[in-house]
Amino acid sequence: MAELLSKNDKRTKYCGEFSTADIGSSVCVMGWAQKQRDLGGLIFIDLRDRSGIIQLAFDENTPEEVYKSAFKVRSEFVLCAKGVVRARGEGAVNKNIPTGEIEIAVNELKILSAAATPPFAIVENSDVKAELRLKHRYLDLRRPDMQSRIIARSKIAKITRDYFEEQGFIEIETPNLVKPTPEGARDYLVPSRVHPGSFYALPQSPQLYKQLLMLSGFDRYLQIARCYRDEDLRADRQPEFTQIDEELSFVTQDDVIEINEGFLKRVFKEFLGRDIELPLPRMTYAEAMERFGSDKPDLRFGYELKNLSEIVKNSEFKVFSGAVEAGGSVRAINIDGGARMSRKEIDSLVEFVKTYRAKGLAWYKYAEDGTFSSSYAKFLTDDENKAILDAMNAKPGDLILIVADAKNNVVFDSLGALRREIAFRLNVIKPGDFKMLWITEFPLLEYDDEDGRFYAKHHPFTMPMEEDLEYLDTDPGRVRAIAYDIVINGTEAGGGSVRINIPEIQQKMFSVLGMEKEEYEEKFGFLLEAYRYGAPPHAGLAFGFDRLVSLLLEIEDIRDVIAFPKVQNASELMTGAPAPTDMKALNELSIAVVNEEE
Amino acid sequence: MAELLSKNDKRTKYCGEFSTADIGSSVCVMGWAQKQRDLGGLIFIDLRDRSGIIQLAFDENTPEEVYKSAFKVRSEFVLCAKGVVRARGEGAVNKNIPTGEIEIAVNELKILSAAATPPFAIVENSDVKAELRLKHRYLDLRRPDMQSRIIARSKIAKITRDYFEEQGFIEIETPNLVKPTPEGARDYLVPSRVHPGSFYALPQSPQLYKQLLMLSGFDRYLQIARCYRDEDLRADRQPEFTQIDEELSFVTQDDVIEINEGFLKRVFKEFLGRDIELPLPRMTYAEAMERFGSDKPDLRFGYELKNLSEIVKNSEFKVFSGAVEAGGSVRAINIDGGARMSRKEIDSLVEFVKTYRAKGLAWYKYAEDGTFSSSYAKFLTDDENKAILDAMNAKPGDLILIVADAKNNVVFDSLGALRREIAFRLNVIKPGDFKMLWITEFPLLEYDDEDGRFYAKHHPFTMPMEEDLEYLDTDPGRVRAIAYDIVINGTEAGGGSVRINIPEIQQKMFSVLGMEKEEYEEKFGFLLEAYRYGAPPHAGLAFGFDRLVSLLLEIEDIRDVIAFPKVQNASELMTGAPAPTDMKALNELSIAVVNEEE
Repeated sequence: MAELLSKNDKRTKYCGEFSTADIGSSVCVMGWAQKQRDLGGLIFIDLRDRSGIIQLAFDENTPEEVYKSAFKVRSEFVLCAKGVVRARGEGAVNKNIPTGEIEIAVNELKILSAAATPPFAIVENSDVKAELRLKHRYLDLRRPDMQSRIIARSKIAKITRDYFEEQGFIEIETPNLVKPTPEGARDYLVPSRVHPGSFYALPQSPQLYKQLLMLSGFDRYLQIARCYRDEDLRADRQPEFTQIDEELSFVTQDDVIEINEGFLKRVFKEFLGRDIELPLPRMTYAEAMERFGSDKPDLRFGYELKNLSEIVKNSEFKVFSGAVEAGGSVRAINIDGGARMSRKEIDSLVEFVKTYRAKGLAWYKYAEDGTFSSSYAKFLTDDENKAILDAMNAKPGDLILIVADAKNNVVFDSLGALRREIAFRLNVIKPGDFKMLWITEFPLLEYDDEDGRFYAKHHPFTMPMEEDLEYLDTDPGRVRAIAYDIVINGTEAGGGSVRINIPEIQQKMFSVLGMEKEEYEEKFGFLLEAYRYGAPPHAGLAFGFDRLVSLLLEIEDIRDVIAFPKVQNASELMTGAPAPTDMKALNELSIAVVNEEE
Repeated sequence: MAELLSKNDKRTKYCGEFSTADIGSSVCVMGWAQKQRDLGGLIFIDLRDRSGIIQLAFDENTPEEVYKSAFKVRSEFVLCAKGVVRARGEGAVNKNIPTGEIEIAVNELKILSAAATPPFAIVENSDVKAELRLKHRYLDLRRPDMQSRIIARSKIAKITRDYFEEQGFIEIETPNLVKPTPEGARDYLVPSRVHPGSFYALPQSPQLYKQLLMLSGFDRYLQIARCYRDEDLRADRQPEFTQIDEELSFVTQDDVIEINEGFLKRVFKEFLGRDIELPLPRMTYAEAMERFGSDKPDLRFGYELKNLSEIVKNSEFKVFSGAVEAGGSVRAINIDGGARMSRKEIDSLVEFVKTYRAKGLAWYKYAEDGTFSSSYAKFLTDDENKAILDAMNAKPGDLILIVADAKNNVVFDSLGALRREIAFRLNVIKPGDFKMLWITEFPLLEYDDEDGRFYAKHHPFTMPMEEDLEYLDTDPGRVRAIAYDIVINGTEAGGGSVRINIPEIQQKMFSVLGMEKEEYEEKFGFLLEAYRYGAPPHAGLAFGFDRLVSLLLEIEDIRDVIAFPKVQNASELMTGAPAPTDMKALNELSIAVVNEEE
């Protein structure tokens, strides 16, 4: 049987912390055997803990019992070793690890735990399948790269809390068993045992409570908060996720931006050792769409959108002129160096834009040798072709990609996604390149053609821009919100808004959203009452914390920065959650499972 | 309508931060009107924010429009005021507030929000009923005492994180949507939409995950974690609560205690400015029960238990001798000064112990004037009476209270609770007195007479003491666990244990708990597998964070240190959570409500 740790077994320090300065010292180390090498009369064990590796050495001077124990050690055995630090012999120095010049001549060894052979090796950059890693997450997390990611996440959380505390923020915990939201979709529900037929919801965000905390006068609130959203998962979504949640009183948009730029500067400096220049660029939503076809523009590369509508509006080529006529547009991007793409590759881009509802993708390839080819040029006049090439500043090596559609958002969405897709395919993005900007002046409302009504783009408590207030009655679609997103490398890292603190504006907002007094009193009554007792101007912002960590670490899959993530179908492979439960538990909650087989 | 904040409205600093050093400065302040006093030609407004109050002054030199605005201000209006700091006139100085020597002569005033009259005044030490406070929690939280409590909680969280980070702890977030526990009682369940008929549970603690993190080699884990327990609430229980959750590898009990004593020293010093002496006292469970009748002894007062069994075991008084004969005991406490209690008060103590299953309470009152009275003395011989009085060191003014029962735990529970109850009633506890100690060597198992089997006292992963391992087969009831609680002023502030990291001991533990291999493999299979790949010795501890904060603030009701607490029936009075939801939502989750009317 394995041996127990005794009071006298005190670790001197972590394995990776020893150096030549320790030579001659008697030390005690504990950790996992990375590997054991038996050279016949000589045994070496690499002992690993979260800090790194140190070599344990056993030779003819090792007490016999200790040598015998060392002989039995296999990978992942847990050991406590005592001995003396010494320099390694000539030729045995390993320059690849910080402790490579030393080893510990062991004179006491306890096997604290034996280990079965793990299903995969505990090494960096494992190419083991994600399913196997997640099933044995406790082993996956032993790998040095996963260790460093989880430790990095902890450091970033610490930097976050330190910074906001210095800025006068108070960390306040808000409830996780809350009232279901009126629309309720995407809420996780929790049946109440004490109140049969009633349910709590897990919060999609602390939005409501943080606004109430402003009404309470806390002035600056911070929480690194767990949030829950029951939606079909994409690669970058988790049913539970963490956000850096902030709310501030007596501020304008500029104050929120300034404080959060300070935060980004701090985290880039403290965590990455990099200086970022402030203020960060700002771009209106309208400009971002016009130039990048996206409200999350990736500025690490060019390929900006150009509007060709004026050039082609009278063309005989109806695909182009018809789109303009119908109120849409014809826009294009010029891929510098894109002419090296094969016809097959270009065809796959045509398929790509179709997933964004574009009906097609016109292209114009200007090869390095000066020859042209095009899928559409034959339908245009020479003048039109020339005007397009001029407008796009075409030069040898370029690939010009054009989308025409009667709906501008189809043009924007498809070209916006396309420019990013091509940047990845052509590998033009340099690692370590961070391009950040604020997007401002979002539309307050979105019109839904099918429902024939407006919806709040952010949420119904977002303050309209003062200069647009007058249009709230007459032309709601043109009203801009005091809302802002922080975009890092084409990803929305965070976002927020100034909130409506004036009941008259809030009521107008509800009426634009098609709600009668009775309806909004029922849905938001207690909140509206709260606002009647003196509501300060307030604004907030939330960073997706999982996403922010993965951006800083330049990791694509957010599951790699979450200790125990769920997979696409919202289950956890390690424990098998969720799982059926027994009838007795359900009876106590006054619920029953129905439609189980559907 | 209220006015909007503009970019030029920048708060100089918080209201309470101004001093005579600011006299002559042009400043801008924002906050809530605490009160407005119109003296005819002179208006004063006390402006409040989270830092305190500053007086705004309006007089004949104030611009007319500004004066008119000030005239309209009522309590809880939200204001932005600009003006010049000046000394208050002779006789107008208010020594009760830090800013009492100054005021702001206002020359610009914006009413940022009007306010209806609140249902209770926003003042300290309000005696408003709890229900009304909780219904309007956003107003209750405006009161200065609630503000300072919530801010204190934030500070204690910061001290906690700073300390443990310095000690090498890594903050790791564990999931909140987990697999229901095998026994499942007290789990909040969350139906899965994606997996009809399956459920997540909200974690009762991160126990499982933090142990896995030790298997992963993170070595030192910290999380200030939300936990959930669906049980009938007592005054100090909330359905969701927060704990300071720790786990450490390669440590013994002493290491855990030492690190946590360092934490307590730090938090007492940084938060209360008090030095506590280390090491804290330790007491075994057996001694705590024997002397204080409780494993949470309150050491702020005496009233220690004495065992009278030897004296009365042969008594004719069968209530006493019968208890001893049946394997129980007769024990007593001596209440110094208790003789001043009236007969009626003593009778209420008799009722009190009955709630702890004691059949009665014998008493002996030795009045200051030397006279005796007793409920039982007549049943004993003079020698027996004298022996008891001698054993209890009785002196004039004392009240001796005796419990006899065939079950020792009834004697302990009733006297343990009684000594504390009397200390409160007699008001012998001094505010600011903190008495802390560790309780160690808890029993590993508890025998349940009804079920005729042992249950784990802590949890089934708790390591037995090495010297008791031999009794695990032969006499499980006498095996002590390596488990420890930290008790502050008679309250369990935290507790933990060394965990079993050796599969052979774990299997023996399961078999003592009456589980066959098949059963424990089904219930804990994945965990047991995890332990096969090399498990380090590990141990942990968790503080109840809500409770720790309330202890440090010397507040009885933990709801006063939680921003948005739930009441006894697990509902939140402000939002009305939990609440019924619509059929559509339940259909999506493949559940239905049953037995709603029961």
